Amino acid sequence: MNQQLHVRGFSVSLDGYSAGPDQSLSNPLGTGGERLHEWMIATRTFSEREGLDGTGEGINDLFVRSHFDGIGATIMGRNMFGPVRGPWESSDAWNGWWGGNPPYHHPVFVLTNHPRDSVEMDGGTTFHFITGGIGEARDCALVAADGLDVLVGGGADTVRQYLRAGLIDRIHLVMVPVLLGSGERLLEDLARPDGRIPSYRPIDLTPSGSVVHIQLAKEEEGEAPQP
Amino acid sequence: MNQQLHVRGFSVSLDGYSAGPDQSLSNPLGTGGERLHEWMIATRTFSEREGLDGTGEGINDLFVRSHFDGIGATIMGRNMFGPVRGPWESSDAWNGWWGGNPPYHHPVFVLTNHPRDSVEMDGGTTFHFITGGIGEARDCALVAADGLDVLVGGGADTVRQYLRAGLIDRIHLVMVPVLLGSGERLLEDLARPDGRIPSYRPIDLTPSGSVVHIQLAKEEEGEAPQP
Repeated sequence: MNQQLHVRGFSVSLDGYSAGPDQSLSNPLGTGGERLHEWMIATRTFSEREGLDGTGEGINDLFVRSHFDGIGATIMGRNMFGPVRGPWESSDAWNGWWGGNPPYHHPVFVLTNHPRDSVEMDGGTTFHFITGGIGEARDCALVAADGLDVLVGGGADTVRQYLRAGLIDRIHLVMVPVLLGSGERLLEDLARPDGRIPSYRPIDLTPSGSVVHIQLAKEEEGEAPQP
Repeated sequence: MNQQLHVRGFSVSLDGYSAGPDQSLSNPLGTGGERLHEWMIATRTFSEREGLDGTGEGINDLFVRSHFDGIGATIMGRNMFGPVRGPWESSDAWNGWWGGNPPYHHPVFVLTNHPRDSVEMDGGTTFHFITGGIGEARDCALVAADGLDVLVGGGADTVRQYLRAGLIDRIHLVMVPVLLGSGERLLEDLARPDGRIPSYRPIDLTPSGSVVHIQLAKEEEGEAPQP
């Protein structure tokens, strides 16, 4: 099995938050959380996709443009899929934040406690709803990816669950040098029941001017940690 | 007043810790905490000072070599000065971790609850013991620095107190891309009573291969935050 699970383009503040405080339906990024995504919004690739006016073509744009390279399936938590809670009211009530043609163009596995039939969108994205937890979502995504890798898209809680389970092979964090002061931290409560935490070695540290791109690869169990 | 307060060369893990868990007298850096300082120990400058065998001459060495440039006085917490607690037993019982000729070569102000006479060391370092809190230490250090800047050396709790009070002008963090999982976080509980947190803008982000040097400058109150 050479397929890997990736986290990519995950923005965290200097003090470790991936969302600001007081997250709500009308402010899902929390107070100040939008500052974590300005680097992305300023890129040409993101702007062209979303009809915005960013023209950035540097390293940030390269990362945004290659976000799905080599990825055959995505896993996400229900919060990342949408603000709807509880049982699905109707199979077409909410089909994600991304409109009729989501940017995935491959199978997307949504973690939820409530069964729902799969929804096929334009452009090759199909949303599948997984009620069996992160292991089932991984197994399904690996099959659906058909030899390609799998992206664990988010949110932070979903990424943490996969990290804690030792299932993430590659991580690309985007360190945004701002202080949010409070909010939701990505890298905490990572210890397994035996107290061990997953071990990663840096494979690249690249500043873009506005942010630092940090790429990490999982170390095998027992491999000596490297600073 | 053009004198500034600096934090320099302060190592933090990817998950934000400046020391590992289970700090103790025999292991003041906590479990795994030594990994935060390997970048520094590997430099030629640090090694020559401490009689070690590091030969690194790159960016890391430049930062270590210039650590005290433009600095005329240092402030530190009592934990950074030594493991001794409670009233000072004798004025020469403990004179810091650094031997008879500490690397400061300027006045050092140690925050403590227990009065003690100043101690003059070889090489120009004099330890003064401040019982009036961070404001008094700052005032004394600015005078003693005689026009030069002041370094807030640590530990993390002392830095946090100064950050929360809005008194740190420049910060140089060294982000070490390892996960410690738990320990003491530098950048938390920074909110003032009014809920505001200090605002900094990045002035340089430089990777060295093993770490990322992050330099920040304080923004004036009301200045728009920049991502």
